[in-house]
Amino acid sequence: MRTGATEVLAVLQQRGVDVCFANPGTTELDIVRALEAQPAMRCVLGLQENVCTGAADGYGRMTGTPALTLLHLGPGFANGIANLHNARRAHTPIINLIGDHMSWHLAFDAPLTSDIESLARPVSGWVRRMTGAADAVAAAAEAVDRAHDNGGQGVTLIFPADYQAEKMDAVETAAAKAEAAHPASTVSGATQTAARTISTPPPRADVDVNTCADRLRAAGKIVFLLGGGGETSGLGERAQRAAARLCDALGATAYAETFPARAARGGGLPDFDRLPYFPEPARAVLDAADLIVLAGAPTPITYFGYDGHPSQLVENDRVLVLGSAGDDIAAPLEALAQVLDAPAYLPRSHDIPEVDDGALSPAGIAATVARLLPANAIVSVEGGTCGYPFYAASAGAARHTTLTNTGGAIGQGLPVALGAAVACPDRRVIALLSDGSTQYTIQTLWTLAHEALPVVVLIAANHQYGILRNELKRGGQTLGERAAGLTSLDRPRIDWVELAHAYGVDATSVETTGELAAAMTRALDRPGPTLIAMQL
Amino acid sequence: MRTGATEVLAVLQQRGVDVCFANPGTTELDIVRALEAQPAMRCVLGLQENVCTGAADGYGRMTGTPALTLLHLGPGFANGIANLHNARRAHTPIINLIGDHMSWHLAFDAPLTSDIESLARPVSGWVRRMTGAADAVAAAAEAVDRAHDNGGQGVTLIFPADYQAEKMDAVETAAAKAEAAHPASTVSGATQTAARTISTPPPRADVDVNTCADRLRAAGKIVFLLGGGGETSGLGERAQRAAARLCDALGATAYAETFPARAARGGGLPDFDRLPYFPEPARAVLDAADLIVLAGAPTPITYFGYDGHPSQLVENDRVLVLGSAGDDIAAPLEALAQVLDAPAYLPRSHDIPEVDDGALSPAGIAATVARLLPANAIVSVEGGTCGYPFYAASAGAARHTTLTNTGGAIGQGLPVALGAAVACPDRRVIALLSDGSTQYTIQTLWTLAHEALPVVVLIAANHQYGILRNELKRGGQTLGERAAGLTSLDRPRIDWVELAHAYGVDATSVETTGELAAAMTRALDRPGPTLIAMQL
Repeated sequence: MRTGATEVLAVLQQRGVDVCFANPGTTELDIVRALEAQPAMRCVLGLQENVCTGAADGYGRMTGTPALTLLHLGPGFANGIANLHNARRAHTPIINLIGDHMSWHLAFDAPLTSDIESLARPVSGWVRRMTGAADAVAAAAEAVDRAHDNGGQGVTLIFPADYQAEKMDAVETAAAKAEAAHPASTVSGATQTAARTISTPPPRADVDVNTCADRLRAAGKIVFLLGGGGETSGLGERAQRAAARLCDALGATAYAETFPARAARGGGLPDFDRLPYFPEPARAVLDAADLIVLAGAPTPITYFGYDGHPSQLVENDRVLVLGSAGDDIAAPLEALAQVLDAPAYLPRSHDIPEVDDGALSPAGIAATVARLLPANAIVSVEGGTCGYPFYAASAGAARHTTLTNTGGAIGQGLPVALGAAVACPDRRVIALLSDGSTQYTIQTLWTLAHEALPVVVLIAANHQYGILRNELKRGGQTLGERAAGLTSLDRPRIDWVELAHAYGVDATSVETTGELAAAMTRALDRPGPTLIAMQL
Repeated sequence: MRTGATEVLAVLQQRGVDVCFANPGTTELDIVRALEAQPAMRCVLGLQENVCTGAADGYGRMTGTPALTLLHLGPGFANGIANLHNARRAHTPIINLIGDHMSWHLAFDAPLTSDIESLARPVSGWVRRMTGAADAVAAAAEAVDRAHDNGGQGVTLIFPADYQAEKMDAVETAAAKAEAAHPASTVSGATQTAARTISTPPPRADVDVNTCADRLRAAGKIVFLLGGGGETSGLGERAQRAAARLCDALGATAYAETFPARAARGGGLPDFDRLPYFPEPARAVLDAADLIVLAGAPTPITYFGYDGHPSQLVENDRVLVLGSAGDDIAAPLEALAQVLDAPAYLPRSHDIPEVDDGALSPAGIAATVARLLPANAIVSVEGGTCGYPFYAASAGAARHTTLTNTGGAIGQGLPVALGAAVACPDRRVIALLSDGSTQYTIQTLWTLAHEALPVVVLIAANHQYGILRNELKRGGQTLGERAAGLTSLDRPRIDWVELAHAYGVDATSVETTGELAAAMTRALDRPGPTLIAMQL
């Protein structure tokens, strides 16, 4: 039987949406029933909604196409907001499909009734409440395009249960209706909402190559800021090579944005550092520059507000914008390199520091992981403990893709690894994580086991919220007793091996770099997921 | 040094807020620093924010006073929304304190910038963005009263980091200012928001005892619906006894609302069933009644919309409202019993069904737990598997307090048990849960171990989302392959014993009622938390 739900799924699938990260409830049951008729849409169950939304983020970063999330009303959606916040910062296309009460039931304020729109807007570039089955099909068709707007964004469809069950014409008819309805830029009932945007965006260059080249020639010290995303982003392979050529030709330097959504790394690519996180070292890079070229990166803003430092670290008149997230950055960089007669790119060779066997340290972990990284791996990095050291060491690793936490909502690294593994079954996925942040979405381990995904989960277990301690101790302040208590995970220490086993994931604990290397080698040889607890 | 943060905490504590369930981040560090000066404010760390908000719900239900939650910006707050949704339905007073960026940093849309107000409004009766340190102190003072509005509600204070650090006068001065500022009903900058309310509320009786008595005398079949909350609610001891007397005098029947926030039970109290969840049995109760007396319970609304059933199960002209959540219900019920010459209440004796030793069943679990329940226990119930059977069996148990999932956002039972244990250190807390729902806030186990709280966690492990399967199979429908997959937690089965051990919680697995009885007896003899996995 064709219903609103079957037609919505059919239209989504026709338009390339064929993975659904799901945690449905009673108001989504007609969508669940409709999935029986869409066997080609892969369904991946998460035991908590941030698992689903984080996985959709990882999937979208790797494929450039939106995954579907299937979530339960306002409270279920709310559980997934944190990772949608990260996805918004990563410009990841995602389509959230949320059931709601029967439309005629809403006014009675039943226990699960909630203001879904208010919850959805902060993390959705486009929010639509469907007003009937035919409207739902049109909205689903439009959603796929809307998910690609603004360089990629989350869109949220609210689908009342009565319209899910509403009987409809055959799928061909519905799809045709959608096709007819879609190109119209507004659909009746559409609620278009814009996320908060920077108050004073720098003027966008028209990317006229000769004008840009003139400005580069005229500038003294130049810093390129490369922003990550798809293949042609500022941190794709082509853009990085072109940026290296421009640095050679101009005596310039280049940095990756601090938290790229996706960056190519290693395998002879240049070793561009990430722009530092704290304002002092970031300003040491930026204050000395006469021109900052934004190549897919946003204007550098301090992560938090710090007294004595401006929020926006460079004034607009020192900025040249080559393009933003979602734009092709490789082409203008290559054109500039040609116009400026930059030398050809020769693959670089970078050393991975040698480490002796011995007690684990962040630097030792970083070097060991970098050395053992298989070609074409995907590394999902979250947590300050090993994230920066690994980025430093990974220039000498085999070619790989790095995914980082773009929005600062923690609990993102493991679900993103899950989504990347679903997106790229022929690539090895490594999740390089910290113990504090991984707890927020720990249920991801079950889905890794359930789907038998070859993800190697590396947990840097220092039994504390290290980043908060670093912030608390800035400027020589001492750590008070309450502050120590609220940043300590030491009493009791979480047993990560038992935790992984509980969810059906193979696990081991290591205390030395030698043990880590052996465990990682074994893990990479296995088909399913493995967790390695790295005791610091 | 006195700062906005120290003064806010001082004012909150002066007004009785002395427990803080916390998961702070960088924008809350001056509040963390200020906690050093408030050693009497107990801080309980949660490893995910729904742990904190659910615990605050449990705490508020048991004490009637608000706990503080300390959460990190929009994404951190979002992680706690689901349990704030439940708390809203329970009318629990809670004060959420959320840090935000420095006020001057917000416009730059740094990675963690988010629309906190939009996220907060659906679960907050009152939302205030503080506009300075002095304003923050006034807002904190007002927040305590606002948390008691509308029968109890969540209120949310957004506290930018610069105002947290702003230097202030000594605490006495600030408190005096707060005192002066507070009684004013509006504070500059206040954003008062109302949650969505029922479209056509039934008219509220003026609770004139004689008028109500006349209406009761004139009515044929009468059903009392008792709603839960504090001591004088419709499910407090006094109200239940008075309702039983009225039932005797009038030939009426009485039901508890389906999901009470807090109900007294056992120990000779009457055995009032809960109004059934599904519409057919609920209508069997209500359709036959000439008069439905709402004694603290809301108008009965179906949980979801069901074709063929009205959303509002009784028309307004069949309803008599004695009082709503937060009102004293005991007094009018007792007055009615007196006016109607109802017989005195004699403690009732209820049998707990005998169960033979053998494989576990929901009924066997219910009877075993009811029989072993220590006097004055608190039972946090979540999950359909054992929830209903336990309620049925528990009338014959020792006097205890039952807390249920009021809003349908799952993952509530374990954090509520945590909060109840913090609130009532001299009472034993039992959490009677299901495996599916407990996963959403599994990190609560760590806090139970960290705080060494004497909570016995009973997990009914049937390795499925049972409630969804029941809904899917309503009306004789068969369970499709995809529906079975999306409601199965069977591959792999979660090892609850290893999971508990990983978080430092003692645990055992049981397969028979005899093993359960032995394990529960041992657990009740231990000082800290114990998890018992009940294999179904």
